Amino acid sequence: MSLPSTQRVAQFQRFGEPAKILTDYPVPDPATLSPNECLVKIEYAGVCHTDVHARDGDFSLKPTLPRIGGHEGVGRVVAIGDGTTSSPVNVGDRVGLKFLARACLRCEYCCRGFEVRCTSASMHGFTVDGSFAEYAIAWADYVTPIPDSVDSAAVTPFLCAGVTVYRGLKLIDHRPGDWIAIPGAGGGLGHLAVQYAKHMGFRVIAIDSGEEKRDLCLSLGAEKWFDFRESGSNLVDDVIAAADGEGPHAALITAASAVSFTQAPFYLRPGGTLVGVGVPPATFDIPFGVLVGKQLRIFGSALGSPQDTIEAIDYAVQGKVKCQYSVRPLEDLDSILTDLQQGNVAGRVVIKL
Amino acid sequence: MSLPSTQRVAQFQRFGEPAKILTDYPVPDPATLSPNECLVKIEYAGVCHTDVHARDGDFSLKPTLPRIGGHEGVGRVVAIGDGTTSSPVNVGDRVGLKFLARACLRCEYCCRGFEVRCTSASMHGFTVDGSFAEYAIAWADYVTPIPDSVDSAAVTPFLCAGVTVYRGLKLIDHRPGDWIAIPGAGGGLGHLAVQYAKHMGFRVIAIDSGEEKRDLCLSLGAEKWFDFRESGSNLVDDVIAAADGEGPHAALITAASAVSFTQAPFYLRPGGTLVGVGVPPATFDIPFGVLVGKQLRIFGSALGSPQDTIEAIDYAVQGKVKCQYSVRPLEDLDSILTDLQQGNVAGRVVIKL
Amino acid sequence: MSLPSTQRVAQFQRFGEPAKILTDYPVPDPATLSPNECLVKIEYAGVCHTDVHARDGDFSLKPTLPRIGGHEGVGRVVAIGDGTTSSPVNVGDRVGLKFLARACLRCEYCCRGFEVRCTSASMHGFTVDGSFAEYAIAWADYVTPIPDSVDSAAVTPFLCAGVTVYRGLKLIDHRPGDWIAIPGAGGGLGHLAVQYAKHMGFRVIAIDSGEEKRDLCLSLGAEKWFDFRESGSNLVDDVIAAADGEGPHAALITAASAVSFTQAPFYLRPGGTLVGVGVPPATFDIPFGVLVGKQLRIFGSALGSPQDTIEAIDYAVQGKVKCQYSVRPLEDLDSILTDLQQGNVAGRVVIKL
Amino acid sequence: MSLPSTQRVAQFQRFGEPAKILTDYPVPDPATLSPNECLVKIEYAGVCHTDVHARDGDFSLKPTLPRIGGHEGVGRVVAIGDGTTSSPVNVGDRVGLKFLARACLRCEYCCRGFEVRCTSASMHGFTVDGSFAEYAIAWADYVTPIPDSVDSAAVTPFLCAGVTVYRGLKLIDHRPGDWIAIPGAGGGLGHLAVQYAKHMGFRVIAIDSGEEKRDLCLSLGAEKWFDFRESGSNLVDDVIAAADGEGPHAALITAASAVSFTQAPFYLRPGGTLVGVGVPPATFDIPFGVLVGKQLRIFGSALGSPQDTIEAIDYAVQGKVKCQYSVRPLEDLDSILTDLQQGNVAGRVVIKL
Repeated sequence: MSLPSTQRVAQFQRFGEPAKILTDYPVPDPATLSPNECLVKIEYAGVCHTDVHARDGDFSLKPTLPRIGGHEGVGRVVAIGDGTTSSPVNVGDRVGLKFLARACLRCEYCCRGFEVRCTSASMHGFTVDGSFAEYAIAWADYVTPIPDSVDSAAVTPFLCAGVTVYRGLKLIDHRPGDWIAIPGAGGGLGHLAVQYAKHMGFRVIAIDSGEEKRDLCLSLGAEKWFDFRESGSNLVDDVIAAADGEGPHAALITAASAVSFTQAPFYLRPGGTLVGVGVPPATFDIPFGVLVGKQLRIFGSALGSPQDTIEAIDYAVQGKVKCQYSVRPLEDLDSILTDLQQGNVAGRVVIKL
Repeated sequence: MSLPSTQRVAQFQRFGEPAKILTDYPVPDPATLSPNECLVKIEYAGVCHTDVHARDGDFSLKPTLPRIGGHEGVGRVVAIGDGTTSSPVNVGDRVGLKFLARACLRCEYCCRGFEVRCTSASMHGFTVDGSFAEYAIAWADYVTPIPDSVDSAAVTPFLCAGVTVYRGLKLIDHRPGDWIAIPGAGGGLGHLAVQYAKHMGFRVIAIDSGEEKRDLCLSLGAEKWFDFRESGSNLVDDVIAAADGEGPHAALITAASAVSFTQAPFYLRPGGTLVGVGVPPATFDIPFGVLVGKQLRIFGSALGSPQDTIEAIDYAVQGKVKCQYSVRPLEDLDSILTDLQQGNVAGRVVIKL
Repeated sequence: MSLPSTQRVAQFQRFGEPAKILTDYPVPDPATLSPNECLVKIEYAGVCHTDVHARDGDFSLKPTLPRIGGHEGVGRVVAIGDGTTSSPVNVGDRVGLKFLARACLRCEYCCRGFEVRCTSASMHGFTVDGSFAEYAIAWADYVTPIPDSVDSAAVTPFLCAGVTVYRGLKLIDHRPGDWIAIPGAGGGLGHLAVQYAKHMGFRVIAIDSGEEKRDLCLSLGAEKWFDFRESGSNLVDDVIAAADGEGPHAALITAASAVSFTQAPFYLRPGGTLVGVGVPPATFDIPFGVLVGKQLRIFGSALGSPQDTIEAIDYAVQGKVKCQYSVRPLEDLDSILTDLQQGNVAGRVVIKL
Repeated sequence: MSLPSTQRVAQFQRFGEPAKILTDYPVPDPATLSPNECLVKIEYAGVCHTDVHARDGDFSLKPTLPRIGGHEGVGRVVAIGDGTTSSPVNVGDRVGLKFLARACLRCEYCCRGFEVRCTSASMHGFTVDGSFAEYAIAWADYVTPIPDSVDSAAVTPFLCAGVTVYRGLKLIDHRPGDWIAIPGAGGGLGHLAVQYAKHMGFRVIAIDSGEEKRDLCLSLGAEKWFDFRESGSNLVDDVIAAADGEGPHAALITAASAVSFTQAPFYLRPGGTLVGVGVPPATFDIPFGVLVGKQLRIFGSALGSPQDTIEAIDYAVQGKVKCQYSVRPLEDLDSILTDLQQGNVAGRVVIKL
């Protein structure tokens, strides 16, 4: 296969400034790939709220600059590095790039399913270049194979948003018919969570704001809806009443708002589980009397393992979970990030490369 | 069997005042027992920090007054109510009384192992009379059978303190050799937790203060010891360093001090688990970045199920876990409560009746 | 409420002979109920293959005669025994009777979820009278509450057939998208298993015989179908090929045929799980090389716990799992049993009382 | 480091014939190592019953010949292949070689903890050369690090025998104080199983034959002992009686004898678990009535995952589990294999290289 010598990429060069769109960035030479590396021709790259923090450098994990951003991507393998002894993928295969570009699979964190905390992990868009590029270097033994029967654009958001909420839901030891509250249910993560939760046997109480989000949540299978702006200070009571008067058995907080977290211990049923996947820049305050008296379980969760990703995508492949997304060009990246920052994005944005 | 007509009991009559020691309190007439009730001649009754709150009425759960206190007791069944269709215990059997006098075993909470939250639960010393009495009414189908080979006084503290820390430890999904930090390790609950943890395969980091507690913890098998007064603000770093430089995999907070809780998320290893069994009158503050970034798991836990109690006691029966206790007369109850309140009790106090 | 003095019942009097239909059998006097007993006016009673063995007395568990048969029933509580201290159900409530009339919930078997092996269990139709009667005595604290929104006849088969396959499936530690083979998929248990399996995230390979069963299985969501008569000796290869060429991850054997069991270890994927709920009068032969070499897991399963039953019924209440059944009068009981014995029953038969 | 040019190895050349001891076999040139390969100077190599089958080629898995045998080895890394991008071990580190020389950690089997069934696995002594050599090639990212505080010879048998029984025991969902029967308890695997079981909270019923094995089992903590030759046809009843008259909750079959397996379903307690790690050349026959009626769980288990190995070794490192072994020279290999075949080996034999 002959490759072009240059490509278009979006590169962050200084924190707080828009990514530069470079149109003559060199395409990596396949001959220079290390063993186990592969070159992927990216078709679609998803845009995540974390990319706002990558641009602004205001997170504990900052990209090393300059850095091509993006950690959600789908494309085809066009080359595999010499000296690769065994690769689960071949040239021509369609694969997905994730936040985690590579984990060792051998350290204590990897062995226990916390690959995200692998002591020698690489992260696309942070420590190595990412998916906002026509050609990206990835690891042949860490990319996720994408089955044929699913559309590239449609599956892209599952590589980060999908697996994040799926993993969070997996942490909950539940019985069929258990109630779950999902604050942020109408958002990019939340609307996927509503669908996963339903397929995992939960009955869903969606919490968000606005008619559009209400309609979306109810159409996806939520049985109850609360607009937090309308419920106001009654939200806790409303949610308890909606779940048999005893409160939901679980809550998955997909909203990055502190109040979404702090309300949950009060409406959760005794023995209930709270899983947080959002990260508000704040502190979670829980009265000990509530935590211990109600015997609550609180989990922080981030991303997921390679196996979680395969499972999360399987729901998309089988058509059980569908992402709402819009397709935009690479040139729109900065305006997309601004929209995300201002909460003006319904569903997910996917860039076509 | 002929029973005396009167007995000695300790009865709380007004919140904030010492329990009255009544020496001519009537012994319940076996003929008046309801079906499934039994009468137990108490040999020993343990004194718990919760009894201070029962006396003072400063907890969300307040006793109805007047009320004979005590929720940890061991004795022998002397009568079983007429109309009892099937009783797992017989007259003459040695049995244990717990905080939970009875749970329905049929409601959702019972079915899921949260009998403590049973919607029709009775509690000794709170909603029904307890073990600070020579004769106590209990439920034949809810008392815990005590195997012959263990001493009555020695096993008494396992009915509440033992099962509480054992249940808390069971919640932790761990691997053999994992590190656990135990703040309050030298106390009534803590010194039992050190022993259970060791037998469950943990390596123990004991945290408490004073030479006597240090010696106790190390003699019980703790591998590391930190005096929180000496470590001061270095405690987090000290604990991380003690556990391979990565922090312990778990923490069981047996101390009712807020700072014991708030330090733990900082020293826990990523993916670590915090279980709290103490209830400081305060709020637990956890930065979201730590909770989600480290993917922590936080459990509030209280008491345990009937099955947990059987298991917890089995460790005592097999001689694997031993409680440090002193024996005192019923008349000392108020001075014992004052000592507990002031933190002047090493191990556990057991009243001989 | 005034009750009639006599009722119609079907009573087994001698092994191997049809049940006698008695039309003037006395209705139990509510005044004679023991504490915790209740009287239920039966609306529908399901007929199970086990009833054939009850009639013939050819099972290890034989009814004591004379005995009113039936262990699947739905009706309304018309009386509760005097001296009942706390009953989760009230007069007028709709409830379900199960094979297990009562378990102690306190013995080791009950505490571990094997209520079926409770050392003091009573069984409807075997040790106490059952549901082939207009009025049956049951235990107020052991009947299963039936939510209002489901039809009595439709929910009846879930009290035994439904919970049996649901419990069996729960034993399988699986990932979404795993393949499961279900021999006997078109039968009374099997066609429920197909639906449960699908809702629990499995992809289903149905195995049975005949066009009617094929159409039923495929309409219920099975993705693959094999007629064991047509596949013959190729069945093992066919099933392996259908599941990615690696074999299914699990098999639930709902057929009471030995060959359905013995084929499964050969087609299961390494690490796979076999659950058997049928009981052929034979011996299961598994080569050790297959069992250990493939690291298989084999579970025998029977009925389910009270909590399993609540969960199993919830699928019916939510309309996710539907039973195919026909309604027949009590007088047809013996001809129904003969049909069951000859394998001539599609789905389940429910008797209207 | 300068390496010798030749070494001593034991190489199988024809099935059924003793391994040839070659004294001038070339030492692999570090320059020829592939990326991720490493060269290990072997100190000790354990001898396993599987080596008899490797010699005789009478197992489904046959070595490709000629082949240096051995799949349990401990030694130090003397070289790491060029192009290795990230190795968890360094030159000079002490490491262990296992039956599995390498698994991909990415296929479905690896992701689910069945690395032994990895579709691209290599096995020492079967598909690649093994540990009966002074220098062996292994994979830097798959060898098991050996902590400093344990003796090389003493830890060698844990790389295969230890992890095999530990993994088998981990499969059992048990409560502290549960009874386990261990047929073959005095053998190489069995005597390790007795110790692991005890530390995991089981009470042990040892089954084997002869005074020496009896003394060994009882000294290691078994509470009951049955000599199967003396018990004869009463063994089932004896074992039931020993476990509270209800039978043990679990059985780990470490003996490669069919009768050890077929007796277990009869003495197991209802709900009990049987784990088989031996592979008799026969068929396991279980009456369906026993399997389903008693709701048994039967697991075939083989070897373990990398994480299992780390955990299994940790017990040795902490001094909780000790292997009985004798040290022999490489030249004795064939006589050791003959002894193993004839059941004349007490504990484990380790070859010093």
